[in-house]
Amino acid sequence: MSDAVTIEVGLGARAYQIRIGKGLVAKAGSEIAALKPGARTAIVTDENVASRHLETLTQGLAEASIAATPIILPAGEKTKSYAMLERVVEGLIAAKLERNDLVIAFGGGVIGDLAGFAAGIARRGMPFVQMPTSLLAQVDSSVGGKTGINSPQGKNLVGLFNQPKLVLADTDVLDTLSLREFRAGYAEVAKYGLIDRPDFFTWLEKNWREVFAGGAARTEAIAQSCRAKADVVARDEFETGDRALLNLGHTFGHALEAATAYDSSRLVHGEGVAIGMALAHRFSSRLNLASPDDAARVEAHLQAVGLPYRISDIPGSLPPAEKLFEYITQDKKVTRGALTFILTRGIGQSFIAKDVPQSEVLAFLKDNLAE
Amino acid sequence: MSDAVTIEVGLGARAYQIRIGKGLVAKAGSEIAALKPGARTAIVTDENVASRHLETLTQGLAEASIAATPIILPAGEKTKSYAMLERVVEGLIAAKLERNDLVIAFGGGVIGDLAGFAAGIARRGMPFVQMPTSLLAQVDSSVGGKTGINSPQGKNLVGLFNQPKLVLADTDVLDTLSLREFRAGYAEVAKYGLIDRPDFFTWLEKNWREVFAGGAARTEAIAQSCRAKADVVARDEFETGDRALLNLGHTFGHALEAATAYDSSRLVHGEGVAIGMALAHRFSSRLNLASPDDAARVEAHLQAVGLPYRISDIPGSLPPAEKLFEYITQDKKVTRGALTFILTRGIGQSFIAKDVPQSEVLAFLKDNLAE
Ligand SMILES: NC(=O)c1ccc[n+]([C@@H]2O[C@H](COP(=O)([O-])OP(=O)(O)OC[C@H]3O[C@@H](n4cnc5c(N)ncnc54)[C@H](O)[C@@H]3O)[C@@H](O)[C@H]2O)c1
Ligand SMILES: NC(=O)c1ccc[n+]([C@@H]2O[C@H](COP(=O)([O-])OP(=O)(O)OC[C@H]3O[C@@H](n4cnc5c(N)ncnc54)[C@H](O)[C@@H]3O)[C@@H](O)[C@H]2O)c1
Ligand SMILES: [Zn+2]
Ligand SMILES: [Zn+2]
Repeated sequence: MSDAVTIEVGLGARAYQIRIGKGLVAKAGSEIAALKPGARTAIVTDENVASRHLETLTQGLAEASIAATPIILPAGEKTKSYAMLERVVEGLIAAKLERNDLVIAFGGGVIGDLAGFAAGIARRGMPFVQMPTSLLAQVDSSVGGKTGINSPQGKNLVGLFNQPKLVLADTDVLDTLSLREFRAGYAEVAKYGLIDRPDFFTWLEKNWREVFAGGAARTEAIAQSCRAKADVVARDEFETGDRALLNLGHTFGHALEAATAYDSSRLVHGEGVAIGMALAHRFSSRLNLASPDDAARVEAHLQAVGLPYRISDIPGSLPPAEKLFEYITQDKKVTRGALTFILTRGIGQSFIAKDVPQSEVLAFLKDNLAE
Repeated sequence: MSDAVTIEVGLGARAYQIRIGKGLVAKAGSEIAALKPGARTAIVTDENVASRHLETLTQGLAEASIAATPIILPAGEKTKSYAMLERVVEGLIAAKLERNDLVIAFGGGVIGDLAGFAAGIARRGMPFVQMPTSLLAQVDSSVGGKTGINSPQGKNLVGLFNQPKLVLADTDVLDTLSLREFRAGYAEVAKYGLIDRPDFFTWLEKNWREVFAGGAARTEAIAQSCRAKADVVARDEFETGDRALLNLGHTFGHALEAATAYDSSRLVHGEGVAIGMALAHRFSSRLNLASPDDAARVEAHLQAVGLPYRISDIPGSLPPAEKLFEYITQDKKVTRGALTFILTRGIGQSFIAKDVPQSEVLAFLKDNLAE
């Protein structure tokens, strides 16, 4: 695996490695044999990923004599549900995996979140490996141990902190991802620049075309993103502080996802985050925290790569501001009634604002919906 | 709380206290205010417990200005299901509890297992307190952090290790428990003697009438049981070794519960454990590990207190031995195909046997069903 980049997630007894490189799906057998000699596996995946890459993975595992039971689910955000959780858990139990065996989450963020959660509760916990196949999952959801499903009352409201034993990110599999999904993942890449790495954001403004094209710049962008995330997670595994910064763009984004009923034909998670980040910068400038130029710079970059950045970029009609606001207060970043937002003082200068006046948020939403 | 016995569960960062005594439900307000000043609560309970004791609890909390949202479920083992898990989790989210608030599990083992699990996954984990109201829950299920629900494939196959912040066991509430349920809980009390405290078993043989009657002997039996359990749990929180001893009687017991479809009119958990313990002793004597006199002594004691101790004590017809055996292999104490049983060399001399021949188990079941 000489050409793979390895990043350490420093979490003491729960520490693990992220390996990023070409052809890792085909080489998964030796990686997993090294991690857990003698393990059997169950592969949780979705129909899109299965049709393109499951055979490569099962063959790769078979070469190392690793048995694999596939559990194939429908694709899409709606799969992060109680019903699918039950299906995966029952599938893992039926596969008779034992404590030395491994669950492999092989797919985008939906599969990673769902399978990681299911692995955490089937027989009170089975070890699992993340094999993210979307850009979003490679740079974000597969790292850090947040797993879960959606509640009818809001996104990601049910789940666990459950760290994987290993993350294997094969950069080649991204070639079968649609451009739209690649862009959505890119929103999370840009996020790390906007949180606290202004130089990375500047680098992305110059090199985003190469990241989309593949090759060294793509690997570099993924590795930088994973390093950024691993740093934050190592400082604050259970999100009692700093880790909340990773939610930049997500409070607005989750509300928009809820408002579009998680209908991916209208909005996917990364797109919601893109619009949410633009809104967070605009809102910060409206509150006189950041310069309007910075907000404009963020919007210009999102527009350049082809991402939506305004609420009006979402096709179809949206609920009124009051309803969007309700989705926001249902979200989990509420502490004793006060609204917590990730705001910014400029590019790469995000911070956790704990006392954002509810009236300001509502007025801001109204203006943006009227736009 | 001068008359309450306090037992420490030594689990480092997850350490907590068990408090056992009279009137603790009415005094819960001051206990909880001391544990988490300013907390709000949700009380998960079942219809039987709610009708008898919920008002005392909410009044006790109100005296300390603690708000409480009740979530009342049907009583019985069938409540440990995916559907009820979803209902409790959604109820906790709707109650808008935050990280400083508390979930109170107020009921028997069913409620404790279910509510502890739900608290562990709602918003990725809310702290919870166990307030066990059945004898079984006071001496066993509320201590040690095993939480979960049943799978159609077997009991307790889905769940978490999730330690409570406090256990409050009010010995008075046991007075509304049916004699049958009290007896069932007593099976787990006797279990601690049979595992590794022969003197405690001898004490029980002499004093069981006083334990049933209430007063000092009852408190003493509960405290001894909690100490025994806390010791094992502190040594082996995640059941990688010794903790499995607590499953004495449970492999047979769970199979019998499954075989009666968790129908509590036929068999409740503690009764399954009673029969299971008798079978474990008989099986050990059949394998020439223990003297038949010890098996007879166990049966005599269970019979004296009015517990079932033979498979034929279960009303209604049972599936054939092959089917019972299938339930056993579906259970989670299977390591790479070999059957693990808790067997014994005599009263208070239980041990973990990892290579019990499957043919011996089957033959033993056949003989016991024919009986
Ligand atoms: N756990 C975390 O910390 C975290 C962080 C960010 C996002 N998330 C979650 O991640 C989810 C979004 O992730 P996502 O965007 O990967 O969604 P996704 O899993 O739905 O994947 C997007 C689409 O791409 C398809 N796909 C994935 N890999 C492919 C490939 N190699 N080739 C072809 N198609 C492929 C999928 O089938 C799906 O249709 C959301 O549910 C979000 O809440 C979690
Ligand atoms: N987590 C663990 O470590 C552990 C250990 C042992 C057993 N368990 C689980 O515990 C469950 C059995 O516990 P249980 O026997 O308490 O069952 P339970 O919760 O069903 O309670 C038994 C019955 O007594 C009623 N009840 C409870 N308290 C009462 C009171 N004070 N007055 C009147 N009625 C009352 C209940 O409504 C129920 O009908 C099983 O699901 C078993 O798997 C878990
Ligand atoms: Zn995201
Ligand atoms: Zn038990």
